[in-house]
Amino acid sequence: MAGHGHPYSPAELVLPGFVPQRLSQGQILTPAMPSSPSSAPGSSPIPIDDCMRFAGRCGGGRLSRSDRLLMGWWVFIALTYIVFESPFLFTPDFLSKENPNYFDDFFKEYSKGDSRFAARNTAVLALEVVTIGLEGPASLLAAYAIASRKSYSHTLQFAVSLGQLYGRLLYFITAYLDGFFWVSPFYFWAYFIGSNSSWVIIATLIATRSWKKISAAFQAEKVKTR
Amino acid sequence: MAGHGHPYSPAELVLPGFVPQRLSQGQILTPAMPSSPSSAPGSSPIPIDDCMRFAGRCGGGRLSRSDRLLMGWWVFIALTYIVFESPFLFTPDFLSKENPNYFDDFFKEYSKGDSRFAARNTAVLALEVVTIGLEGPASLLAAYAIASRKSYSHTLQFAVSLGQLYGRLLYFITAYLDGFFWVSPFYFWAYFIGSNSSWVIIATLIATRSWKKISAAFQAEKVKTR
Repeated sequence: MAGHGHPYSPAELVLPGFVPQRLSQGQILTPAMPSSPSSAPGSSPIPIDDCMRFAGRCGGGRLSRSDRLLMGWWVFIALTYIVFESPFLFTPDFLSKENPNYFDDFFKEYSKGDSRFAARNTAVLALEVVTIGLEGPASLLAAYAIASRKSYSHTLQFAVSLGQLYGRLLYFITAYLDGFFWVSPFYFWAYFIGSNSSWVIIATLIATRSWKKISAAFQAEKVKTR
Repeated sequence: MAGHGHPYSPAELVLPGFVPQRLSQGQILTPAMPSSPSSAPGSSPIPIDDCMRFAGRCGGGRLSRSDRLLMGWWVFIALTYIVFESPFLFTPDFLSKENPNYFDDFFKEYSKGDSRFAARNTAVLALEVVTIGLEGPASLLAAYAIASRKSYSHTLQFAVSLGQLYGRLLYFITAYLDGFFWVSPFYFWAYFIGSNSSWVIIATLIATRSWKKISAAFQAEKVKTR
């Protein structure tokens, strides 16, 4: 443990009352990995398979496979925000708690990839506020909109995906402007890049799909009124 | 002039080499106010009337009044980003320049409503990077899309308006979390709230309009395929 009694970078970072992490990296990461119910015990509290099965049941038999997949994604996202990210937002003292729970240790581990979480950087906090306060409920609404074939379904999916992309972009730009906050290249690639890149890729795919679907609807309207 | 040789709040803010503002508040604000060419001399370099006339000419006679108005708005926005905001981004030493130009003094004055501009706060800088780098070009593309009746016109206008709203939201949340940065209630209402609220109102109106237009297109498609 380097610096001021904590393992984070930069070593000069002052974190009063820091209580070291109790769980090992493996104990923290295994439950955080998205997984199916059939996988090893101790896997994620948010099983993707169950999300999809639930989504398929809500949508009845009328939904296409891609719509069921998207519904599963939105439910999964909303649960991830609620289960994993809201404890961070609502536990300002997670670093100094005498009896840390799993989520306190989860964010202690995650801060090795970006110590702005440990330091409660305001840009990171503001992004979490928008994610949990707006994008969480909007993700659930998107799942409902797909199931009930609302005419705003693609617009909402486009909006939430765009919000995720805008958020990740600001997250990366502020990190670049503020400096570098990871302990080692491993944490840079595995946590800072790895944990953010899947959201970026999937959000880009969904935003592109919705964009095309909306354009097609306007094309159809144009042909009709010609 | 209070504090460390500068007029900003908080007084403890350290701004090395600060060169006081030369232009008066009136000399700075008159050119910054949006205006028509017929108004007083010395008014904005970005006349709204001209933007609308230019937009109307590009779109030919086929465009509705609301589409011409929207084209004018997008051209006006893009020019505002280029003319007023890019000097801030590309002049990191604007506070300490021996011979400040109009834009250096503009941001010295504007910082009285939010000293994070003077302090080059990274969250504010990151928001400016996205605004100038993405939303500026996208605004021009939106004007073009309206003029040439592209099928992605509403999606793009929705995306840029949403980006503006997301940006303003993060701007306000980070200000709330970081503390208060205005010199007096006048600067809070006139600069911090006043200069940001018009974007919020217009962006909300455009996003709502595009949302409805897209929903209507899907409704029409649904009726057609029934």
